[in-house]
Amino acid sequence: MNDEKYTTGSANIGTIHSDLGKNVMAHLKEIAPDLARYITEFFYGEICTRPGLDMKSREIATLASLITLGTAPLQFRAHIYAALNCGCTREEIMEVVLQMSVYAGVPAAMNAMFIVGEVFQDLDNQGEGDP
Amino acid sequence: MNDEKYTTGSANIGTIHSDLGKNVMAHLKEIAPDLARYITEFFYGEICTRPGLDMKSREIATLASLITLGTAPLQFRAHIYAALNCGCTREEIMEVVLQMSVYAGVPAAMNAMFIVGEVFQDLDNQGEGDP
Amino acid sequence: MNDEKYTTGSANIGTIHSDLGKNVMAHLKEIAPDLARYITEFFYGEICTRPGLDMKSREIATLASLITLGTAPLQFRAHIYAALNCGCTREEIMEVVLQMSVYAGVPAAMNAMFIVGEVFQDLDNQGEGDP
Amino acid sequence: MNDEKYTTGSANIGTIHSDLGKNVMAHLKEIAPDLARYITEFFYGEICTRPGLDMKSREIATLASLITLGTAPLQFRAHIYAALNCGCTREEIMEVVLQMSVYAGVPAAMNAMFIVGEVFQDLDNQGEGDP
Amino acid sequence: MNDEKYTTGSANIGTIHSDLGKNVMAHLKEIAPDLARYITEFFYGEICTRPGLDMKSREIATLASLITLGTAPLQFRAHIYAALNCGCTREEIMEVVLQMSVYAGVPAAMNAMFIVGEVFQDLDNQGEGDP
Amino acid sequence: MNDEKYTTGSANIGTIHSDLGKNVMAHLKEIAPDLARYITEFFYGEICTRPGLDMKSREIATLASLITLGTAPLQFRAHIYAALNCGCTREEIMEVVLQMSVYAGVPAAMNAMFIVGEVFQDLDNQGEGDP
Repeated sequence: MNDEKYTTGSANIGTIHSDLGKNVMAHLKEIAPDLARYITEFFYGEICTRPGLDMKSREIATLASLITLGTAPLQFRAHIYAALNCGCTREEIMEVVLQMSVYAGVPAAMNAMFIVGEVFQDLDNQGEGDP
Repeated sequence: MNDEKYTTGSANIGTIHSDLGKNVMAHLKEIAPDLARYITEFFYGEICTRPGLDMKSREIATLASLITLGTAPLQFRAHIYAALNCGCTREEIMEVVLQMSVYAGVPAAMNAMFIVGEVFQDLDNQGEGDP
Repeated sequence: MNDEKYTTGSANIGTIHSDLGKNVMAHLKEIAPDLARYITEFFYGEICTRPGLDMKSREIATLASLITLGTAPLQFRAHIYAALNCGCTREEIMEVVLQMSVYAGVPAAMNAMFIVGEVFQDLDNQGEGDP
Repeated sequence: MNDEKYTTGSANIGTIHSDLGKNVMAHLKEIAPDLARYITEFFYGEICTRPGLDMKSREIATLASLITLGTAPLQFRAHIYAALNCGCTREEIMEVVLQMSVYAGVPAAMNAMFIVGEVFQDLDNQGEGDP
Repeated sequence: MNDEKYTTGSANIGTIHSDLGKNVMAHLKEIAPDLARYITEFFYGEICTRPGLDMKSREIATLASLITLGTAPLQFRAHIYAALNCGCTREEIMEVVLQMSVYAGVPAAMNAMFIVGEVFQDLDNQGEGDP
Repeated sequence: MNDEKYTTGSANIGTIHSDLGKNVMAHLKEIAPDLARYITEFFYGEICTRPGLDMKSREIATLASLITLGTAPLQFRAHIYAALNCGCTREEIMEVVLQMSVYAGVPAAMNAMFIVGEVFQDLDNQGEGDP
């Protein structure tokens, strides 16, 4: 275990994610503490703090990957909030989804757009523009 | 057929792509002119000129999707050049690949990295920094 | 925007799809009107009206693709109705699913068959043979 | 129809699977009796009784495949019970999931781990160690 | 082993496939005779002779699935010949590929189209219309 | 950087892999030293040394995942050697592939079997039983 990276990673999860992402990680930690620790240390404590790519671009890449996979709707939902937290506008997120219709196919883009619609509706209901 | 979008799309292919991407599209046009036309009109003439997301971010999303698919090494290779043409640095491209190891798995990232290595080597052999 | 193709596409959606497919498209239009318009113009207004392949065969190809993807149960459900509307028999739809067990794997075929079973049950409950 | 393999396969389903897996097969049999019969004869009556690989290793391979697919959560859930029935420990199952984070990506492993957590919780609630 | 189904399956392979498909199966038989036998008995001896769906439609479904998978270019190539042998026209095959651009994404359709182009060129070079 | 895990990981790569796997890692290290280091530290230095699952079972899970992905033939080839090195017999490896025909589909199993056949032929040509 690498305490320093874990601390950095935990702080980054706090900065990048909204409640949904934090709750997913907390829930994972209860079930599989080692997997949660690896993700915290390796991804949030090391990869996403590397200087070569800004966090906003990292979230765009993550959204594109999750839309293409099509098997991780919960993570996609959490990363919509994360993308907003990292400086993406709602319009940029919708453009990423729209562009994925070409690479991952129309069904993948439609499924992603329905989730985007729900997240934006939730934000509107909370009387907030963006988190 | 929409001549205006086709003209716009053809021009965008000329701007975004290097020789490889142009040759792939030219080859597709010989075999399946209608599919080539749809891609030119719809993707290059319409989607990628939409104002909500800059071309560099679109290429980052495209790279992430192609790495995640893992089934389109030729298109991934062409879009490495395209990403460089649209303002991505070599380091940014490698960071996108590295990040994909988390979302799409390590084999997907390794395969992509080998292609990135070949493209960068080719560019070095041509005595160019970036296209 | 191409008004003629949009009109053709909207009419084709009305002909091909039952309520579920129409509602999915209507819902998409509320959230992402541009994606809905692209699908209407490009797929329903252009691709699926091309003379080289009949609509029934197009639906068979669509079902096979959606079963293979395994990530679009809502669209698969809508295209079961569409396939029936385009002349597929229930037996033909079940044979497509069964055949996919070989190409896409048994879990993909099982998941598809459960959805087919629900749609056929719904149709029976409505006192209809086929839509 | 091959009665002998069907009888062997049905017996193997009874031995390998817990209630969930048995119910899934029974439900499939109602909707698509031929697909259920093929799976019973071909997979449970022939493949999984081949001498070259023990049942525990077969279940490890099956879990790894289902985690990688990411599109068959119901079958994955059923095969967690099956793996326990075939001699896997809970720890071994969690290690397979953890290892898949490297090959299939972190989202695939997280989704699988949440299902593993639910199954183990259900077993604990039933006052049983392992089925 | 089921001799009757094996005989039927072998005959069907002879009828459906051209040299490429026959050679792939013969090569598989050398390496893994049991897998070759299962495919012969189960798929070619049983599934594809079921009365509910004609062979031409089965080949359309197979092409759509293989394009969507994107990981089986050899099998896709063999099934282009098989589709022609089962009554598909060249135009119908190209339409299936074109339609897959919507469901499986543009890269999947492009890759498939390049293979289709090669097969049609080979047939032209042999001075044949269709096999 | 974690020197201890890197040392452990490098040693494990030496033990688990044959020349092919070692060469792949060495090649990756030239192109993308950080990705090579992460894989060495995180996978070979940490995950695969965890006590909950023996190395032979880990290789079975890895083979099953790589066959299911279908996009990593190089890694699959390397892990056939690794599986042999970790105690799998040739027969066990072929059974894993055969079983994957059910979960990942027949094309995935066929493609994997062709690679298995090549590896076993290479080993025979070297006058060795198993590495």
